[in-house]
Amino acid sequence: MSNATDFESTDSGRSAKPLPYALFVTLEAPLDLEKGGALPGVTVAYETYGTLSEARDNAVLVTHALSGDSHVIGHTVEDDPGWWEIMVGPGKPVDTNRFFVICPNVLGGCRGTTGPGSANPATGQPYGRDFPVITVGDMVEVQRRLLDHLGISKLLAVVGGSIGGHQALTWSVRHPERLCGVAVLATSPRLTSQALAFDVVGRNAILRDPHFHGGQYYDKAKGPEVGLAIARMIGHITYLSREAMTEKFEANRLQPREVATEFEKTFSVGSYLGYQGSKFVERFDANSYMTLSLAMDLFDLGGTPARLAETFSPAKCRWLIVSFSSDWLFPPDQSRDIVNALVANKAPVSYCEVRSAGGHDAFLLPDEFPIYGEMMRTWLANLAEGGGEMDSAAEEHGPRSIFSQHRLDYDLITELIPANASVLDLGCGAGTLLARLKGRGHPRLVGVELDERSILACVSRGLDVIHADINQGLAFADGEFDCVVMSQTLQAVCDVERVLLEMARVGRTCVVSIPNFAFAPLRRILAEEGRAPKAPGVLNNEWYNTPNIRFFTIADFEEFCRDRNLVVHRRVALNTEHQCEVTENPNLNADLAIFVISKGQGGE
Amino acid sequence: MSNATDFESTDSGRSAKPLPYALFVTLEAPLDLEKGGALPGVTVAYETYGTLSEARDNAVLVTHALSGDSHVIGHTVEDDPGWWEIMVGPGKPVDTNRFFVICPNVLGGCRGTTGPGSANPATGQPYGRDFPVITVGDMVEVQRRLLDHLGISKLLAVVGGSIGGHQALTWSVRHPERLCGVAVLATSPRLTSQALAFDVVGRNAILRDPHFHGGQYYDKAKGPEVGLAIARMIGHITYLSREAMTEKFEANRLQPREVATEFEKTFSVGSYLGYQGSKFVERFDANSYMTLSLAMDLFDLGGTPARLAETFSPAKCRWLIVSFSSDWLFPPDQSRDIVNALVANKAPVSYCEVRSAGGHDAFLLPDEFPIYGEMMRTWLANLAEGGGEMDSAAEEHGPRSIFSQHRLDYDLITELIPANASVLDLGCGAGTLLARLKGRGHPRLVGVELDERSILACVSRGLDVIHADINQGLAFADGEFDCVVMSQTLQAVCDVERVLLEMARVGRTCVVSIPNFAFAPLRRILAEEGRAPKAPGVLNNEWYNTPNIRFFTIADFEEFCRDRNLVVHRRVALNTEHQCEVTENPNLNADLAIFVISKGQGGE
Repeated sequence: MSNATDFESTDSGRSAKPLPYALFVTLEAPLDLEKGGALPGVTVAYETYGTLSEARDNAVLVTHALSGDSHVIGHTVEDDPGWWEIMVGPGKPVDTNRFFVICPNVLGGCRGTTGPGSANPATGQPYGRDFPVITVGDMVEVQRRLLDHLGISKLLAVVGGSIGGHQALTWSVRHPERLCGVAVLATSPRLTSQALAFDVVGRNAILRDPHFHGGQYYDKAKGPEVGLAIARMIGHITYLSREAMTEKFEANRLQPREVATEFEKTFSVGSYLGYQGSKFVERFDANSYMTLSLAMDLFDLGGTPARLAETFSPAKCRWLIVSFSSDWLFPPDQSRDIVNALVANKAPVSYCEVRSAGGHDAFLLPDEFPIYGEMMRTWLANLAEGGGEMDSAAEEHGPRSIFSQHRLDYDLITELIPANASVLDLGCGAGTLLARLKGRGHPRLVGVELDERSILACVSRGLDVIHADINQGLAFADGEFDCVVMSQTLQAVCDVERVLLEMARVGRTCVVSIPNFAFAPLRRILAEEGRAPKAPGVLNNEWYNTPNIRFFTIADFEEFCRDRNLVVHRRVALNTEHQCEVTENPNLNADLAIFVISKGQGGE
Repeated sequence: MSNATDFESTDSGRSAKPLPYALFVTLEAPLDLEKGGALPGVTVAYETYGTLSEARDNAVLVTHALSGDSHVIGHTVEDDPGWWEIMVGPGKPVDTNRFFVICPNVLGGCRGTTGPGSANPATGQPYGRDFPVITVGDMVEVQRRLLDHLGISKLLAVVGGSIGGHQALTWSVRHPERLCGVAVLATSPRLTSQALAFDVVGRNAILRDPHFHGGQYYDKAKGPEVGLAIARMIGHITYLSREAMTEKFEANRLQPREVATEFEKTFSVGSYLGYQGSKFVERFDANSYMTLSLAMDLFDLGGTPARLAETFSPAKCRWLIVSFSSDWLFPPDQSRDIVNALVANKAPVSYCEVRSAGGHDAFLLPDEFPIYGEMMRTWLANLAEGGGEMDSAAEEHGPRSIFSQHRLDYDLITELIPANASVLDLGCGAGTLLARLKGRGHPRLVGVELDERSILACVSRGLDVIHADINQGLAFADGEFDCVVMSQTLQAVCDVERVLLEMARVGRTCVVSIPNFAFAPLRRILAEEGRAPKAPGVLNNEWYNTPNIRFFTIADFEEFCRDRNLVVHRRVALNTEHQCEVTENPNLNADLAIFVISKGQGGE
């Protein structure tokens, strides 16, 4: 293993300030590159936190974003803070008391790992623009070699955001045997054309800066600082949401801070950008910026659902995918594309689109940390305890769930679901039903839920849950699940017809529980009192604020099934107040009914 | 009036290609500028279309956007097309068979009107950066002087989008006596911090281009073409929506078109931007770009609702305001801020947020033209016919509206609304009720509606209608209207409580019509058949697709009013099938009831 001295000698030193805790290794084997060419050998700068277990099974690889480096957190109280202090450290979600965290500076970077500013052995001069085009795959290959060098054959997880997420995604398909889980935040299968466009303009600003000198500016008095600063300013705008910028700059728009910069300072947002741009050129190399930004732009796991699913087919890990609602650079739709591809491959994935005003940078910010940080913490803890096979028996199999009062319908639904069936639970809430089923050995259990905190509850229970609005259709294949469950949710659904037909498309059988508005006491309330029906239980809401927006009866539902060619295989009617089954005139005597249905043969 | 020869002599000619149909006038009087300094005189390039009427009352001033010019449309079939061919011309919404259209190049521009490229009389050299800081107000002052020169004392309308909208808004408050109407598209009261930030980066790219030479590059072999191209590329990204860019570039992302540019051409979006950037520098002057972009950024009608309302208080015109859902540069919320300020001032305004994927440029594109173009056409036609006082009596006062079957409730609601009351109609649809009221001389009639086509129908009837979702609250002051009407809408409202309390806050009295789910036949259906109630009329929908999401009765509504301190002044119950009033046991015998309510005295 080489040391910091090696580093000093191989780097031009223009932009790189040595990282005091970085370790260095020179991997001597030539590195063949995906886009052609090779590097004769690669020096990697990396930092580690925590202790590798004797079994070498607690390693977490953290991959950094475009302008990041190996310095994830400070190593001592005197050390500079790192870029992900909220997420990593003792007692933090990526808990360095428990996990051994490794973060290498990426290939092509300028903070210790070989990049365009490193000396080209062939010339003794910095590579400059002679540095070859590299890809995210090349970065991952260097990381793999580093792990070989460190004697780590299998990672517990790879964790990263933005282009760090690109690296993590690539790990999952290049080295599926070498990791148990992947957690990505604010990432995408490839950049949107809009995001590409911003990168193109940034690179053009550098490329056409007269001081760029075709990339050989290292020995010049002046480099392409203006171009790099312009690129950085554009980047900064795209990392923030419009809301966040308004919040930050609107009140004092014409009161710029006095900062040392030659850029325009008329507006407060201008002094911020000028400062960020000027500061960035002190710590970053323009050629590295070009190299890494192009690698990000070339990254492409597939532009269609089929292509994406194919790309992910080698992956064998568990997944946590988090996006942020106001991230317009790596928008949530793109995370959903990844999730849908993984779902199509039956991969164990949880997904949450966290409501946030933080923009792309939200994964670095404390605002929504109570949600996404806790997801990371519980997901990683479950992963460490055996692939999410959390033992929830004691908690869940008692007569009363901690999340709600006893749900007789859950008892019956559980009975109606065949052993060994794969199960999808639509509107799964905090995962009470799925947690019950978990002990029974079902091959696949997936929840769909809209509420963030309920999703967090599911993740913390080690369940796979997808953040989605079922009114928008279901991103699952025809007949993908043996059984699709929707329990006491249909009355709150806007597009009933679409949801039911989607259920029947995706599930070979479906179990649907519905409240019955023709329950005798409800009929009486309307008929005799002339009032909107209300009853204890699911129907115990006022007319003006009930979540229920569909008012229907057992008879209505049965007619709907007949008309839509949905076969009713079984019906169990309940009186939940008396906690008993109803056999006589259910449309009058039951307040809840559970149906087992499926799509009929022949026409739609 | 000067001619094109004057122009040639006063402009440096670096960027400006003469516009063959432009007319030129040199306004000799010195122009004192808002930010200090003065210009000794201003040459204005402008074009006109159509014929000024003898009464001189058909003039429409069209104001252009940042990189636009006086060439709105081609003058002959051989002439180059202009920038707004879809909107202006014979038979177009701004109909040059009927209206006399004037479009001047803005002050500070580079297409004929005095700007930084013009000769500074003090030196004989182009102004360059000695050209003073100008504002949108200065641009408008030059336009006013042009109109004086043309002998036009009053404009029918000022019409513009983007920064053209800024000019139009400024006209409304600087010269309220000189115009009847203002129609603005994709505009804002001031730029968002995000939009400012993009402009700042663009200006920095020019300012720090080594070929900028402090703005005195006119006699140099090379000017700041790279900086200007970078600024233009950034601009282009912000003019398009993410969806539009995906649509345009995603399929062939790695197949750039072969274009002549020195900018990066790796990606298809890159070749597009490189081409746009390279082309722009042939027709635009960097100093003009700096000047106009700064004027746009300094534009500020107010950052708070109160400040905005104060700014608009001098305005006396009729308003049409259009925004586009995917415009993230001048987002719809900002148009809504303008609308709310005008509403607070009781100005006659119609507003529509047009659903569009076209981004900021949508106002120049054909995609949503059937909506926003028709709005412009009908609004302008109504304006020309007398301030929107369209005679709709014949059409509307008959027993049957053209829009729906006879609405007995409208007859009664019309009777319940006091003569001379100001009226707000929530969920006004195509404006049937408001059109009926129009003939009766109410001082103010305003509709609120969510559906685009219904809004268009209202505008074409000369009604003032605001695009808004009433679930989000009402942007009207306490007690602003004598009467607020909500007809057969409450059962489709999600947040009933908020909407009713908002109504009672805004209206001194409220007229609410509701369907009664305790109507005898409906009770019978549930009680005897055990089915979800359904009946002809407003309740004639299936349970699974009805727009009605609230199920309540006359008795429920009355209890709600009691509990919320809403006083019921009058109740009229109807059987709409028999088209008669019901006096005996309305909660059983009426299918519809109309209430006159108001907020009670004392605590909330």
